[in-house]
Amino acid sequence: MRTPLSALARRTPEPAISWLMQLTLDRPKLISLAAGFTDNESLPVAEAAEILQDVLTPGKRAQTALQYGSTAGDPRLRERTLKRIEKLDGVSTGYSAEDLIITHGSQQLLYILTEALCDPGDIVLVEDPTYFVYLGILESHGIRARGVRLTPNGLDVEHLERVLGELKRAGELKRVKLLYQVTYFQNPTGWTSRFEGKAATLELLRKYERAAGHPIYLLEDAAYRELRFSGPDVPSALAVRKHCDRVLYAGTYSKPFATGARVGFGILPEPVRTAALRIKGNHDFGTSNLLQQLLLRALESCKYETHLVEVQRRYKRKAQLMTTAVEAHFPSSVEWVRPNGGLYVWATAPRGTSAGVKSKLFRTALRRDVLYVPGELCYADDPARRKPNRDMRISFGGAADADIPVGITRLGSILRQLAG
Amino acid sequence: MRTPLSALARRTPEPAISWLMQLTLDRPKLISLAAGFTDNESLPVAEAAEILQDVLTPGKRAQTALQYGSTAGDPRLRERTLKRIEKLDGVSTGYSAEDLIITHGSQQLLYILTEALCDPGDIVLVEDPTYFVYLGILESHGIRARGVRLTPNGLDVEHLERVLGELKRAGELKRVKLLYQVTYFQNPTGWTSRFEGKAATLELLRKYERAAGHPIYLLEDAAYRELRFSGPDVPSALAVRKHCDRVLYAGTYSKPFATGARVGFGILPEPVRTAALRIKGNHDFGTSNLLQQLLLRALESCKYETHLVEVQRRYKRKAQLMTTAVEAHFPSSVEWVRPNGGLYVWATAPRGTSAGVKSKLFRTALRRDVLYVPGELCYADDPARRKPNRDMRISFGGAADADIPVGITRLGSILRQLAG
Repeated sequence: MRTPLSALARRTPEPAISWLMQLTLDRPKLISLAAGFTDNESLPVAEAAEILQDVLTPGKRAQTALQYGSTAGDPRLRERTLKRIEKLDGVSTGYSAEDLIITHGSQQLLYILTEALCDPGDIVLVEDPTYFVYLGILESHGIRARGVRLTPNGLDVEHLERVLGELKRAGELKRVKLLYQVTYFQNPTGWTSRFEGKAATLELLRKYERAAGHPIYLLEDAAYRELRFSGPDVPSALAVRKHCDRVLYAGTYSKPFATGARVGFGILPEPVRTAALRIKGNHDFGTSNLLQQLLLRALESCKYETHLVEVQRRYKRKAQLMTTAVEAHFPSSVEWVRPNGGLYVWATAPRGTSAGVKSKLFRTALRRDVLYVPGELCYADDPARRKPNRDMRISFGGAADADIPVGITRLGSILRQLAG
Repeated sequence: MRTPLSALARRTPEPAISWLMQLTLDRPKLISLAAGFTDNESLPVAEAAEILQDVLTPGKRAQTALQYGSTAGDPRLRERTLKRIEKLDGVSTGYSAEDLIITHGSQQLLYILTEALCDPGDIVLVEDPTYFVYLGILESHGIRARGVRLTPNGLDVEHLERVLGELKRAGELKRVKLLYQVTYFQNPTGWTSRFEGKAATLELLRKYERAAGHPIYLLEDAAYRELRFSGPDVPSALAVRKHCDRVLYAGTYSKPFATGARVGFGILPEPVRTAALRIKGNHDFGTSNLLQQLLLRALESCKYETHLVEVQRRYKRKAQLMTTAVEAHFPSSVEWVRPNGGLYVWATAPRGTSAGVKSKLFRTALRRDVLYVPGELCYADDPARRKPNRDMRISFGGAADADIPVGITRLGSILRQLAG
């Protein structure tokens, strides 16, 4: 007798990420340039041990850490987080700690915000390419993703205007609820959006709101913001004062500190914050207090900052290892951009060479024990264009230092072979 | 310009629990017999500190704890959890660790299972009364809750048959996806379902499956199972060998160990497990590994068991304090049952005395700084009966020992006044 899964479950296929992870587990000798994992060696073991001893020193604070908290999260952690973002942005947002919500990683926030704003059949604009797990969330909720061209400096605002115009003419603008962007060292490209571009994007979305009949939000996923190892920080879209009430800011402490301690956060305008909070109540009525206290104490004691400097130094070195190897071993016909942060390099093979899941390149690389993320997984299904298939997301985050040049050298030789 | 929230968000009202929590925060002198919190003094501060020092001893294990894990959860924790449940049940389930999934508290599992199986308009059978947060999940997904009478020994199976028969005649059986039960020291009543009743329930659900055209699952929420302080343990529905493929078992380590360390789990038949796993991937791609290692190590080191004995001893005493006070101070016309575990006593005022949110009883109690959960919040909206309003959920979990008799004495005097 067949179990009738819900429409949501039926729309939720096996995520590509599991399949890639499985490939890794099955081949112990594999050099994975695919994982979005942070570097094992970079994890703050000693710091976390010390902080948790402190947090769990017998007394009221220790009890708080092991007890339920509020659904929105620890008030001091929210306060400190807001101040931290305002400092990074160099502006006061006008928000208070009340406007923040702490989540079990920022992934949970992406899920909840999508639940809060979108119905099946709605449209979410995404970067083309974008974070593939977010595409999975959209698919599972029956939401259509529409890609907007991404450049190494951020969204192609002219293309955004064209897309919005087309949606308007097609009478579909009322289905557009938000634009999702990973604005810092993007997953998968490693590219960062310029502030001016974010301001122009918000301006443009606002212009189309009248025709949409409702606000169109910019969901700014800043997951990689603190993994910056060169160049200046870019203010977030919250710093676009005129339109900051249209920004849903999603941040996380997991990636910069410890991915095993899932603490993300959102800075959200009303009525989105209240809706997200209520939904979060149904999900889990609050993120683990112990994890929140770990992060709060890490921030208060400056261990977070000290660790961050170390992490940035480490990723800078690893990025350098990778880009040096790419320069030396990839054919010059492969296009790529030197990253200033994050975990990824995005490399595009020359015309005629596919890097997709079923490509000769991917299969040969796998046979030679090198794994990358085929870029095609990061593009929305979009009738308006053929899905690009020449891109590779190669990550310097999880791989061991020594493996990076080996993996890149092998990939380079396969690329030369296929392109030549 | 109005933000169009999703249908889900519009169906998600402020949960009653927030409103009750707010009442607590606003009145520092309040004696809260409402909170489902565990006792602050019972939290394993020293144990957690010791375990986390161990887990975070520099090395591979420490790094694992601070790194992403798999979406399903730590394999050893799943293995140990399965063995533990099989030991409690005294049977081998035929399941393997692969069939388990670790979640951010069992609340997250309830959410995900509901997402996996139910579409808007579907029907979920619930105990009448039931856990009110679960009613909130159903409401938010546009799922209809249909109550089945609950007795101090479990579900009224004859009433279940009547309800199923009515649904069949109304052509609605195909919308019935599951029956949700809190089978141990239920929230809100404190009542435990007998094993024979669970077996009869599964048998009955099976009988109606042909007419439904699909499996009807029993979602067994065993959140309070380990908070047992008298009487023998009852095997779970998994021990009903013939029908264990229709059982979705939801358990948790949070309540017995530390509510601030959210680790729940599910033992699930296919295809439900795979669907839940994929949805979990979109929610957060896995529960915090640090929390999982904390619980795993607590189990391995027997600190969990030792702590459990202490917790059970403590709740036994607190329950005793409460029931002694109830016996002494509540009018004999109030009905209640002595609990054998959990956190709650369910007391029903005599006919003519409402205990509801707007009742004189509730308002007077609040004015005299005593808070309970009005039982009416725990009943589904059900056209088939008037919503009962004479019940109170009074919790001995969170309140301080000394406050319990004071709170009960006050409540008793108000009850006498109103009933007399």
